[in-house]
Amino acid sequence: MNYPGGIKKENNPSSIAKTLSHKNRGMTLEADLNITNEYYRDIDKAYIYKKPTPIKVTKVEYPSRKDTIIKEAFFTIPSTTDYNGIYKGKYIDFEAKETKSKTSFSLNNIHKHQIEHLKNIKRHDGIAFLIIRFTTLNKTYLLLIDNLLEFIDNNKRKSIPLEYFKEKAYLIKDSYKPRIDYLKVIDDLFGGI
Amino acid sequence: MNYPGGIKKENNPSSIAKTLSHKNRGMTLEADLNITNEYYRDIDKAYIYKKPTPIKVTKVEYPSRKDTIIKEAFFTIPSTTDYNGIYKGKYIDFEAKETKSKTSFSLNNIHKHQIEHLKNIKRHDGIAFLIIRFTTLNKTYLLLIDNLLEFIDNNKRKSIPLEYFKEKAYLIKDSYKPRIDYLKVIDDLFGGI
Repeated sequence: MNYPGGIKKENNPSSIAKTLSHKNRGMTLEADLNITNEYYRDIDKAYIYKKPTPIKVTKVEYPSRKDTIIKEAFFTIPSTTDYNGIYKGKYIDFEAKETKSKTSFSLNNIHKHQIEHLKNIKRHDGIAFLIIRFTTLNKTYLLLIDNLLEFIDNNKRKSIPLEYFKEKAYLIKDSYKPRIDYLKVIDDLFGGI
Repeated sequence: MNYPGGIKKENNPSSIAKTLSHKNRGMTLEADLNITNEYYRDIDKAYIYKKPTPIKVTKVEYPSRKDTIIKEAFFTIPSTTDYNGIYKGKYIDFEAKETKSKTSFSLNNIHKHQIEHLKNIKRHDGIAFLIIRFTTLNKTYLLLIDNLLEFIDNNKRKSIPLEYFKEKAYLIKDSYKPRIDYLKVIDDLFGGI
């Protein structure tokens, strides 16, 4: 990854801003979160990792005693969310998703058992949420599981309108370091944790 | 998996005990932990999962629009431990290993960065430990990261003798449900968490 980073768009000449903005579109939410979590670890703030993608291995070969090559495997449905870890002694758990839509986030993007999982975490006193990026709008929101459930309980539609995010979720500002400072939102929400 | 489970060896006629003991040898620590964690989830006690094995995918094929087959991939070194989750609001993190040795557990079985990771978790007020099974002796111990570090700091040898486990670690009793009740040890150690 050769993303230059380091420079806040708004503080820079338009030519650089253009370059950055262009490059920024290429950065996935996952890449941004990986950089952010690495930064949190570097400054000893939090230890939050992305879990490996679950893969079912069905065929392996051993070309030498030391090497194993997987020759056939399949992606499987994750049983939990993608990210978890610890921050100030609290258990943190979230799922991150991007949407190209400018108007809503489809609930089809989240597995039912992932919502169940986040509910379980919340009930056991963990901090559970979604991070949703509207890529076309370049807006990234943190939506607490409580607000997700509130929406599901009170609506029949299968997608959450952007308006709901504006009202109930928390906008995560882009910055240089960390890229997506979602723990700032957690600090603001849970104050003295 | 056709393990019958359900019957404590010591309470049963020797013929059954023999069968169970034989089958028991076939049950890996990982399988026992998976069953245990599933049980904890079923009774809504704790939400602790094994992370997927990290795999680097280098070649995929798409035989149809919906299907993806991985045709070449490699196992990679995990950046953290295998298990983590939440129990009574606390962040739990551990690595589980088996050894056939009757006398010691080789530290080569644990990556350095995994020890670093467990140290970080402890410093941030999580509960961090190893679960080590001496398969030949059929003994499973829980060793807190503090005691692991104490050993490393005070010894030059690259393996922890069984005696150290007897002295500093906590024996986890086999039972029916859950198979390996390691949270019982956590309760005993951390009392009112």
